[in-house]
Amino acid sequence: MDGHHPGLEDISVAETRLSSIDGEAGELLIGGVPVEELAANATYEETVFLLLNDRLPTVEELKAFRSALASHRAIGEETRAVLRRAANEETPPMDALRMGLSAASLGVEDETTQTAVRRVIAVVPTIVSTYWRYREDNDPIAPRSDLRHAENYLYMMTGDEPTQAAVRGLETYLNTVVDHGLNASTFTARVVVSAESDVVSAATAAVGTLKGPLHGGAPGPVLEMLEEVFETGGPEAYVRAKLDAGERLMGFGHRVYRVRDPRAEVLSTAAEQFYDAGGDAEFFAATKTFEDVATDLLAEHKPQRRLETNVEFYTAVLLAGVGVPKELFTTTFAVARVGGWMAHALEQLDDNKLVRPRSRYTGRSDRRWKPIDDR
Amino acid sequence: MDGHHPGLEDISVAETRLSSIDGEAGELLIGGVPVEELAANATYEETVFLLLNDRLPTVEELKAFRSALASHRAIGEETRAVLRRAANEETPPMDALRMGLSAASLGVEDETTQTAVRRVIAVVPTIVSTYWRYREDNDPIAPRSDLRHAENYLYMMTGDEPTQAAVRGLETYLNTVVDHGLNASTFTARVVVSAESDVVSAATAAVGTLKGPLHGGAPGPVLEMLEEVFETGGPEAYVRAKLDAGERLMGFGHRVYRVRDPRAEVLSTAAEQFYDAGGDAEFFAATKTFEDVATDLLAEHKPQRRLETNVEFYTAVLLAGVGVPKELFTTTFAVARVGGWMAHALEQLDDNKLVRPRSRYTGRSDRRWKPIDDR
Repeated sequence: MDGHHPGLEDISVAETRLSSIDGEAGELLIGGVPVEELAANATYEETVFLLLNDRLPTVEELKAFRSALASHRAIGEETRAVLRRAANEETPPMDALRMGLSAASLGVEDETTQTAVRRVIAVVPTIVSTYWRYREDNDPIAPRSDLRHAENYLYMMTGDEPTQAAVRGLETYLNTVVDHGLNASTFTARVVVSAESDVVSAATAAVGTLKGPLHGGAPGPVLEMLEEVFETGGPEAYVRAKLDAGERLMGFGHRVYRVRDPRAEVLSTAAEQFYDAGGDAEFFAATKTFEDVATDLLAEHKPQRRLETNVEFYTAVLLAGVGVPKELFTTTFAVARVGGWMAHALEQLDDNKLVRPRSRYTGRSDRRWKPIDDR
Repeated sequence: MDGHHPGLEDISVAETRLSSIDGEAGELLIGGVPVEELAANATYEETVFLLLNDRLPTVEELKAFRSALASHRAIGEETRAVLRRAANEETPPMDALRMGLSAASLGVEDETTQTAVRRVIAVVPTIVSTYWRYREDNDPIAPRSDLRHAENYLYMMTGDEPTQAAVRGLETYLNTVVDHGLNASTFTARVVVSAESDVVSAATAAVGTLKGPLHGGAPGPVLEMLEEVFETGGPEAYVRAKLDAGERLMGFGHRVYRVRDPRAEVLSTAAEQFYDAGGDAEFFAATKTFEDVATDLLAEHKPQRRLETNVEFYTAVLLAGVGVPKELFTTTFAVARVGGWMAHALEQLDDNKLVRPRSRYTGRSDRRWKPIDDR
């Protein structure tokens, strides 16, 4: 026995070529490419192709991959009925996504793993936007195969073709968070397929983990905080009150990165570009002010540790700008991360070993069966 | 970094009071009670109460727990529609269970974790039997709250009240396999809730893992093998042919137990009692002959390692006897194991740490972004 490691914090359980995190240097590679080069330039389809194939696609390959993905966007009527009920009951969006994704193997026959991977990635935006349309008392909008992945997602939410600035902003977000080592949801996907189960099961399981507040992918509260700050006036008063109360300030700091999370930088730049191109400039200026004020006060408060805006902060600012409702921030994280989950599932299957850890028994050893009348 | 452990084989990731496996001694404790004492005596409800509360219930407690479980057996019409389509398409039963279970949080509001745990355990038999009724072109049968858990499961499959011998046989099976350390599905459930996610997500994820052929809970093929042997005549010829071809003999050996798996012993006794009470005596006699012949030939073939019938062998014999169709053997394993999953989920939540392991990066570090026309 090599010891007891409840969070597996320092235990490596897989080899991966999909992403590399250097928390000390603040560097993240996605498919070998620095995130700051990849995220703002690639379409989501290119990024997923890179993860699945370990190289960027040619023009022809990208075209084929795009249309393969686009061909798997539809969901069945039974799935829609489940999503409608979930929306009517205001079931949380991540629960609705789990329900819809779990049913994604309906209506398909003898599918190869490669095809199932594409279906899983393709169908997540449809499930999320179908649920949201019902939630807003609208009819769902059928996917359009002539639009690219991110574009079609925004289109299905509103029925309007999004601006190219919004599509670019969303794609930069999707690329930035598509993969990040063995986070808990990605690890879940790998554990599921380690039993040689299928990728729909893996993605469904990963959604369940991503749903958990400890996963750290919940930028919704950051937007609520910003809205609260802007309504109540001064960011300084807000931040001072938080720090005096000994509370954590949302949107700052990360457990892995000791310097600034490189994803925060990418998303901050993307947000700036988006808002410059015609978003709500006043809102964006206010967030910049909030960031400056908070960073200074945090440095004053904890001079030994440099706390900067994290990925959640600019996710909130960027996604709000491109038109994703804050209720869908975590499901939109899933729209991105499912590409990483699927690539990890394939990587696990390719060189598989069943994940079956040990436990330490702390229970009784002297208990005997007693008939119920003798208890 | 404490090293690279792809299967986590010798890494303990949790403390548990739920079960203790001593593979060298061939001992298994469930909730502190030796499996051979518990399995054949307890109702399934008593066993689950034991896992959840760390003691056996009194008469009053058991009554209350039984009716609490029984009150959560219903599923909604949207879930039934999904199961009907799955059955019509002959979607594998474990996929159908994953779909149905994922939707188990529909129609419930502000549920506590304790209530959700009961709902998850209670609803699995309903999902499985509803799917099966559709699969056999029958209407589903509504659960009856006056029947106990195992009894109601058999009732919902056929519409007839089962014999007490069949209920006892099934309960002994359910108790025997309700928990078994940190197997891959149970570990999956713990990883999901380690993000502070919910128990429906945990159980859905665990079903996905249990589905995998490497999990080792697939006694269906054992029954097919027995049927083949009995049709083709001599067990000796069958076993010799397998061994000569260098193939593994299904139903023998276990990765953890070096002596006989204690669960095999319990299930063998339960099968004997069931068939003595009026099952297909000829079938049972033939399985005993097969076991004797195969054990002798295996000992001859590999004298250094003692291979005996494992839990799958007598699971197949017992479940076939009590009337579970072989297509539902793995889903019936889930009917049992969900009690363990839920107890583990609560145990994890009670002293939680996010499970977030590391990975070893094996990809490129020199790749740069290239516009598509330059590739």
